[in-house]
Amino acid sequence: MFSVTVRDHVMIAHSFRGEVFGPAQRLHGATYVVDATFRRAALDEDGLVIDIGRASEALGAVLGELNYRNLDDEPDLAGMNTTTEALAKVVADRLADALGESGLDGLVVTLHESHVAWASYERSL
Amino acid sequence: MFSVTVRDHVMIAHSFRGEVFGPAQRLHGATYVVDATFRRAALDEDGLVIDIGRASEALGAVLGELNYRNLDDEPDLAGMNTTTEALAKVVADRLADALGESGLDGLVVTLHESHVAWASYERSL
Amino acid sequence: MFSVTVRDHVMIAHSFRGEVFGPAQRLHGATYVVDATFRRAALDEDGLVIDIGRASEALGAVLGELNYRNLDDEPDLAGMNTTTEALAKVVADRLADALGESGLDGLVVTLHESHVAWASYERSL
Amino acid sequence: MFSVTVRDHVMIAHSFRGEVFGPAQRLHGATYVVDATFRRAALDEDGLVIDIGRASEALGAVLGELNYRNLDDEPDLAGMNTTTEALAKVVADRLADALGESGLDGLVVTLHESHVAWASYERSL
Amino acid sequence: MFSVTVRDHVMIAHSFRGEVFGPAQRLHGATYVVDATFRRAALDEDGLVIDIGRASEALGAVLGELNYRNLDDEPDLAGMNTTTEALAKVVADRLADALGESGLDGLVVTLHESHVAWASYERSL
Amino acid sequence: MFSVTVRDHVMIAHSFRGEVFGPAQRLHGATYVVDATFRRAALDEDGLVIDIGRASEALGAVLGELNYRNLDDEPDLAGMNTTTEALAKVVADRLADALGESGLDGLVVTLHESHVAWASYERSL
Repeated sequence: MFSVTVRDHVMIAHSFRGEVFGPAQRLHGATYVVDATFRRAALDEDGLVIDIGRASEALGAVLGELNYRNLDDEPDLAGMNTTTEALAKVVADRLADALGESGLDGLVVTLHESHVAWASYERSL
Repeated sequence: MFSVTVRDHVMIAHSFRGEVFGPAQRLHGATYVVDATFRRAALDEDGLVIDIGRASEALGAVLGELNYRNLDDEPDLAGMNTTTEALAKVVADRLADALGESGLDGLVVTLHESHVAWASYERSL
Repeated sequence: MFSVTVRDHVMIAHSFRGEVFGPAQRLHGATYVVDATFRRAALDEDGLVIDIGRASEALGAVLGELNYRNLDDEPDLAGMNTTTEALAKVVADRLADALGESGLDGLVVTLHESHVAWASYERSL
Repeated sequence: MFSVTVRDHVMIAHSFRGEVFGPAQRLHGATYVVDATFRRAALDEDGLVIDIGRASEALGAVLGELNYRNLDDEPDLAGMNTTTEALAKVVADRLADALGESGLDGLVVTLHESHVAWASYERSL
Repeated sequence: MFSVTVRDHVMIAHSFRGEVFGPAQRLHGATYVVDATFRRAALDEDGLVIDIGRASEALGAVLGELNYRNLDDEPDLAGMNTTTEALAKVVADRLADALGESGLDGLVVTLHESHVAWASYERSL
Repeated sequence: MFSVTVRDHVMIAHSFRGEVFGPAQRLHGATYVVDATFRRAALDEDGLVIDIGRASEALGAVLGELNYRNLDDEPDLAGMNTTTEALAKVVADRLADALGESGLDGLVVTLHESHVAWASYERSL
């Protein structure tokens, strides 16, 4: 199995609902350094899983819809706690939609919220 | 599949038995930068794999029992070579015990012994 | 010249005023991974610039007053753009106050806002 | 499942054939920071997946055959686009050959071409 | 003193002249991960050393003139060994020219050629 | 001013004397990831601060005398607390001796004891 990963980042504000979150129930924010991994069983005729330029553009477009926003005000995310792991799924699913027919077999999205904590969501395509 | 990872570290002394270890048969030591990854097929009602604060505390407690020690003198580790990969299993198994009934599906523990070498142990829960 | 650096992080929301900031004029947020460097011309009698535990506690206390907050609502920061470089000075000055008589000669605080951008403020003590 | 990873690097020149590569069709080059991960279901009698010294030597020997070269002139790579993912397979397959009978169960090779892009190839042994 | 740093990268081919370079006299290549640090004694009226977007664009433009090229064929670099330290000066000087009147006090450019080696050039403005 | 930095590591055991060290008074150990920075005002005729291969060898030789040892038993270090900052000076001074007449202007040695703490010593040559 082959994979290619590209890295980008997004800076957002949000708050959480639920006692388990303690002080993170207040409005705060995060930089997520985002790694998107594209998997493919065999390379295409150019020797690629996916062109790195195209992968970067696709990730950048998905993150651009979240960047510099307060996620508490985003209609598409209403009613959910935008935890790091939940956002990893949002990014992965939007990326899957954006890729369309791609010949890829799977996708992993990892959001690093700091140098000591990160979360991932992995799905097939 | 979702996952959450937290990072901490531990500083220990130890020595190895066996010619394969060469100069590492002498008493020396290591900083292990430790990543614990918690896996779960579906998020809980708060949108979490595991609360990052709780994950960090659990990892910190397990590492606290090893920190600032000479592993050659630890009764629980007697008779084993405390290689990086063997210690990854010790940390993972102790973490699994500490978590108890957690709803988690799996656990990966990675110990980085330097910027150029690390080892992991992966298990189900 | 000797130095010791400790690393921690803080997660905040904020917005900027001024056209130069473009979309960052909207409420958004950041994780700042914060490095505090303590400088001293000669080591103390224990062979230390500053005890790493004490340095970490001092940095953690200063960051704790900012963590999980919307900086737009902080009275102490009213009227300023809380850019990465301006916050580096806030953290450094508060750390200098917290250290009091320390025997240290200088301080550098670096805030990493992403994997591709960071800012520092350096001052004497 | 256990694993051990060692890191090394290689510096090469090459060019790509195909419009998808845009300006990378010109002769250019890359540093690949290379991680080789060795997997094994159970530890050997010394408590090892593989001795880290031996793993580093094996990786260094494979990379030494590519280092400081123009891959466009390498007979063994003739006719292929030496993309990051294609080279990950070359390194993994040569490493597998070099290891011979090893008791290992699998191998992953990751080539980092920059701080924002990397590729992997995973195979069984 | 304040500073802001932005990171980008460039991928080039080149060779060196001189016995000291050993196998690096052959045509090979490198990814340079490039950090450009901008220094300023006092912040401007927006609270900035330099806008991070503008800094990134300036660095990207300078690196764009080198990217995906064989430096042995660049007329502007003819007759020089394009070592990592020499290229750090090329990038810093070109960046200084591009910035023009900026209110900045100094500039540091660091080129990382691998995870274990990097070089810098520092100058006033 | 130009500089070149090379990275290596060393794994040692030691203990500290003094109440300030708390549990670190027990025999424990550390991996130090060591960065040695060589400074020079002007490049030599090959376009170098120092050849990276020569720099790496010099650093490796100095670290080799400490590697896989219990520093409490080293005669040359008797009577000193081998704190991270004190060891940075030991490495820098030994490196200065090993370099001899070098044309270099200064040296910085940084020892990373974990992902969240490091120390440096800077001296002229």
